[in-house]
This record gives sequence, C-alpha cells and structure tokens, in this order.
Amino acid sequence: MVNIAVLGYGTVGSGVVEVLNTNRELIDLRAGEEIRVKYVLDLRDFPGDPIQEKVVHDFDTILNDPEVSIVVEVMGGLKPAYDFTKAALLKGKSVCSSNKELVASHGVEFLEIAKEKQVNYLFEASCGGGIPIIRALNESLTPEDVIEVSGILNGTTNFILTEMRDKGADFEDVLKEAQDLGYAERNPEADVEGHDACRKVAILSSIAFGKTVKYQDIYTEGISHITLQDMEYAKELNMAIKLLANGYSLPEGGDVSYYAMVAPFLVRHDHPLYSVDGVFNAIFVRGNTLGDTMFYGSGAGSLPTASAVVGDVISAARNAGKTLPCFWKGEKLTLSSNDKAVRQFFIRVGEDRAEEAKNIFRAERLVRSERVTGEVGLITGMLSEKEFADKAESFGGVLQRIRINQ
Amino acid sequence: MVNIAVLGYGTVGSGVVEVLNTNRELIDLRAGEEIRVKYVLDLRDFPGDPIQEKVVHDFDTILNDPEVSIVVEVMGGLKPAYDFTKAALLKGKSVCSSNKELVASHGVEFLEIAKEKQVNYLFEASCGGGIPIIRALNESLTPEDVIEVSGILNGTTNFILTEMRDKGADFEDVLKEAQDLGYAERNPEADVEGHDACRKVAILSSIAFGKTVKYQDIYTEGISHITLQDMEYAKELNMAIKLLANGYSLPEGGDVSYYAMVAPFLVRHDHPLYSVDGVFNAIFVRGNTLGDTMFYGSGAGSLPTASAVVGDVISAARNAGKTLPCFWKGEKLTLSSNDKAVRQFFIRVGEDRAEEAKNIFRAERLVRSERVTGEVGLITGMLSEKEFADKAESFGGVLQRIRINQ
Repeated sequence: MVNIAVLGYGTVGSGVVEVLNTNRELIDLRAGEEIRVKYVLDLRDFPGDPIQEKVVHDFDTILNDPEVSIVVEVMGGLKPAYDFTKAALLKGKSVCSSNKELVASHGVEFLEIAKEKQVNYLFEASCGGGIPIIRALNESLTPEDVIEVSGILNGTTNFILTEMRDKGADFEDVLKEAQDLGYAERNPEADVEGHDACRKVAILSSIAFGKTVKYQDIYTEGISHITLQDMEYAKELNMAIKLLANGYSLPEGGDVSYYAMVAPFLVRHDHPLYSVDGVFNAIFVRGNTLGDTMFYGSGAGSLPTASAVVGDVISAARNAGKTLPCFWKGEKLTLSSNDKAVRQFFIRVGEDRAEEAKNIFRAERLVRSERVTGEVGLITGMLSEKEFADKAESFGGVLQRIRINQ
Repeated sequence: MVNIAVLGYGTVGSGVVEVLNTNRELIDLRAGEEIRVKYVLDLRDFPGDPIQEKVVHDFDTILNDPEVSIVVEVMGGLKPAYDFTKAALLKGKSVCSSNKELVASHGVEFLEIAKEKQVNYLFEASCGGGIPIIRALNESLTPEDVIEVSGILNGTTNFILTEMRDKGADFEDVLKEAQDLGYAERNPEADVEGHDACRKVAILSSIAFGKTVKYQDIYTEGISHITLQDMEYAKELNMAIKLLANGYSLPEGGDVSYYAMVAPFLVRHDHPLYSVDGVFNAIFVRGNTLGDTMFYGSGAGSLPTASAVVGDVISAARNAGKTLPCFWKGEKLTLSSNDKAVRQFFIRVGEDRAEEAKNIFRAERLVRSERVTGEVGLITGMLSEKEFADKAESFGGVLQRIRINQ
C-alpha cells in the first residue's frame, strides 16, 4: 500500500480525493498498489466531510511519518509550499504538484534534490490542467529538437475572449460574468494580465529547451486592452484573438536564439489553435522531425487538474526508487530581446491617416468593418518589434496594435 | 552503447535512420546512452547509401547477435514480421514497431512475452503516426475510466475528404491526385475502405478498455460512396464529413456495454475534430474525471512516424530490464451489436418524398442546398441503427445516409 498526504484541501485537493475515490479500483490496478490518502493538511477543519478524520494542521506529522511516501502539494503560492516541498523531498518522499508558481520559480532545484534522493518531483498539473503535455515532452517527444512550444495556457482569458467575440459583450462585462461563474478570481490580475500563462510557458520552455527560462525574463502583456472593435476586425480577417504564450528558437548566424512572449495574438483560421474556445487550453509543439503536434483539453477545473495530479501519483508509485527523466537543467537560458523578433502586426488608425499609415508600416492591405467607423485596420509588413515601435512612435496615431501569429 | 537493428528500409525505416542521424546528440542525451544502428535488414541492397555496410539479408544475423538489444520492426504486414518479432522478444530483445496490422492481430501476445522476458514491446507509431497517444493512455491518463476514444486515424481519407470539400472535386479525381502526391497507395483499398483506421482503433480501444478488441469485430465502412452532394449539405449544416474510428462505452442496465465502428460521420462545428483537415490525424479521448482531451498531429509521413519509433527506442533503452506498463489484456472484449447504438442520421431523399420521410424518420428539419436539385436532406430523430435500417428498408428511397457524431 502507498500512503499519500494531500497538502491543501481546496479546489484541486478536494478533486484529488474525489478522483482517487471515484476510480479507486482502476487506479490501484494501474499503480500496481493500493493508493490511500493518509493525511490531508489544511488550516481548516471539514466537519461532516469523510476526510475530516485525516485532517492534520501540522506538516511535521506528515514529514515524520515514514509510511507517507508521496506528498501531493496543491496549496498554490510560494509559502509555505516551498519549505514543505523541499523538506519532503529531502526526507525521501516524492512530491506531485499543481503549483505553477512554485514550479516556475524553484522547479529545477526540486528536480535536482529528487534525483539525489532517488525520488520524483512531478508537476503534470502545473501546465494546461488535465492536458498530459509534460510527460509528452519528457517521455514521448524525446527524439525531437523542439523548436516551438506555444499555446493557450489560461482558461479564464480564453473564456473571456470567446465570450466577447460570440456575444459582442465588452471585456468588463464578460469578466464579471466569468467571476460569477467561478471561472475568474475576484482579483483577476494573475489571469487577465498574463502572469499565469507566463509561469506556465516558462515551465514548458525550460523542459523543451533543456535550460531554465526565468519567467521574470518573459515579456508579458494581458488582454484587458482588447476591445469589441478588435473582435470586429478579427472577424473580417477570419482570425481569432487568443492570449498566446510562446517559446521558440530561431537559427541566427550559425547559432540558435531563443524567444518567449505572452501577449494577445491574431491567429489565422487554418492554425490548430484558432478553434480552441472557451475554458479549453491547447499546447502546440513543433519538432524538427515530428513537425506540428497539438494537445488539447480542459485547462483548469477541479477534476481535470486533479486527474493530472493523480496520474503523477501513479507514476511516482510505479517508479519508487527510480527518478524519472526530466531534461530541465539549472543553467539559465538567455532569451534574445524581442526587439529583434520579426512578425506582422495588426493596427488601427484614424480614417484620415490610412494612406500615410499604409506607407509607413508597409501595409499590404486595409481592413474595414461595417461596425467600426472613422477608422481603419491595417496588417503591416514584416517588421521587428523595434522597427514597429519606432515607426509607431514617429507616426503617433496607432489606436491599437495586436501581433499576428506567423 | 545500445545497438539496434532496423527491419525494413522503406519509408519508415529510412526515416528512423534519418531521425537518429539528425538528432543524434539530443537522442543520446535523452536515452542516457549512445543509440547506434548496427544492422538494417532488407531484401534489397542500397549501394551508395551510407547504411549499405549495415545491410543484412538474414534475420538470424540480428537474432543471434547478443549486442543487439533493440529491434525496430517497420516492415509492415504479418509475414515475416510476426515470426521476427516473436523470435526477438523470446531472445530477450525489445521490439519497437510501427506495424498496426501486426499489433492489432498479435499485440497482446507480444506484450505477454515481453513481460515474461523483462523486455518491452512498444508500438507508439502504429496509431496516429507521430501523435504520442499510446504513451498518454499507458502512462498519463492512468487515473481515468476512459469512456471514449475516437478519431481521425487515417491521413489519406482525411486528405481526400478535405480536398473534395475545398476544391469541389469528386472522390475519384481527388483519389488520383492523392496517389500522384504519394498520399495514397496504388491499391487504396486499405485506406479508403477504412481497414487501416479499423486496425488502429482496435489497438487504441484495447489499451483504453483493458481487454482485446478484435478488429474483425468492428463494423467498418469507407468513404468511396461520399459525393460532392454530401459535401454541399455538410456546408449547409455547418458540419464536416470525417472518417471516424471510434470505440466507446455506455452504461446499460447496471452494466457497461462497449461499441466500436469505423464510418464517415458528420461532425458538428463545435467539436474539436471538426477542424482537423488534410493529412493530419487527431484522437479524441473522453475520461470520466478528465473530461475531453484531444491529441493532434501528423498522422503519417516518414519522419513523424519515425520520430514515434525512435521515441520508443529511447524508452526501451532507458528501461532496460524493466517492462513498461500496458493495460491491454488477452481477454476478449465483447462488443455490443451496433443495432442498439442510438444516434441521428443525415439522409437524402427525393423532393417528392420529403414530407413522408420527415414523418417516418422523425426528422427535426429539412436541409436544402442551392447546388443540389430534385432532392432534400433530413436530420432524423434519435434512432437505433436497427430502427433506422428497418425504416430505410420500408421507405425504400434513401439516396444516402451518413451518421451524425453525437
């Protein structure tokens, strides 16, 4: 029998208990052993809940119980999750986590301790909820030189953008709806300003490229400035506005440069990310021999995320005494300045300045929407971020700019 | 160093050698050992090809060389692949295969021998080319009671259906184009009649449901009867015609019944399989706690398929002495008769019999296309296959019927 302890009985923690109960027989069969929850750590008590008798308030009870071989860390935040994780690993317990903030900040440190102690630090649930992307990178796409990993990594913002488009409602109204439905936090900043997606793409890029991508180095822009007018133009262009988080490499002068960014992008109709709507997430991976592949699923929610955590628990149980491979190393990956990143931009300018803008931004075409008057949209030529910024500054009348996914 | 032998130097075999050469450093790093091709078995010689010196014509050279620990079987067909695979496993060599025909017929037998000999029989490349679906089922979705696995599993037919829709060309013309482009075989029957997809869904269902689904038990219908008129109606309905291969379970009277089928289906606009076009494949999996997830990628082609094979080689190398889990057991899974499967159908009938058909088939709506005259389309009410067949027989004038994906 494998005894586990669940740290935090919130949305994900209660989901973990529910998944383990619902699919107990299957899970025991696939783990090769009975998996049982021995403790649940929480500040609160849960009178009437069947887990009440397992609730403890002191982490040391878990740490010092040699029967607990796997710790599930689903508390979120850095403190005290960092200390608990480190202590558990050092005691020779495997840790399975859904905590993207902690993984993005300290994942590689934990991986190293886990290796030393011949246990596992697994975090499938930290990116893309129930989408099995991390195991795919670590164990399936192993022959690949991954050139790009990009995706829709935040369900809240994807829900908001989808609703704005489909219902013609503006950002603030949809945000309120999302909060009422429980899809968005009361303080929505981490989601709508892109910080959540930024941490996730830092983790995915670190695994894909094999060195540490610091989330603090990733340029991050949210969706709060996206308007209904933008949605109208997107329809005219047959594109969708998506908050994309991407990491990619480009050959440059005999070497390879790495880029990363989180920002709203216009995605073309024929790209697989175009039709990923609502709270769904999707992660697109391009390998040098595999070509394009995409993983799609519920990006959040109690049970899908919990299922990913339990998948890690099963892996940890099956691989007791053996550290599973993860090719994320401590060495820092230096990202190139986005100034050099070249792409097209969609911009909006006043009708009276259309021709001038067309020349300056080397626009191929003008875009008009019946529902937006007094202005016009343009798709610029291929420009570096720096060139674009310089032109926009000297032009002085860019009403909006949204990058175009190439 | 790990020495491997590649059986068959055709499309996939030469791809395996190319992937190993192209990404040699990365592959050695991730395998934890140098992976080297020691032999290539083929009836032919390849003068001028760098692998010529490794070509052997006698399998016994490979079988009796104790340095070869992994055999890559990419010959296709049952003979002599069956004998070679069995002999290699019995000699304690792991086998990695892309051969869906052999896996569908004898996979579980090989898995059992591999377990006995503490080696691995891996076949990621047998379904969905480069899409890492088998490892996802075996190692990621382990907490899930999988309720459905369905997908677009054949790139040739998906290319044909996409071209028919986009170019308004009919089946025979597009098939010829696909043959000229190398996407379809000169004898296209295995693809266009659904036999290839049938074998793949037998494999996926066997793993997902844990018992052996015999491909011979799966009702299989191809796409050669799909016409341009059908495409016109599909556009009107905002649906796409896709050759789907599916396996799913339904609760029935306290028990669970299993169904499987390969046939063209109309897929609704909001389903993730709707926008999977061209030679791409996608596999949709529904789990009881995870919800919906989908895996998308190149379904065929030399390098993507080879990448999946090499991924298995890396797994086999990393797990020497340990058999990786696969929950496909020998016990036969009895499929329920599709007679009981309930769904809606799209049918076409003569204009003069529209009202009669509407009543008989409990149709909710009529569908007309400007480009198709003298007839009308209908979406029937929910009917079992048997009810539908009986009604169609007594009605006597159904010009076409295509199932609707529920």
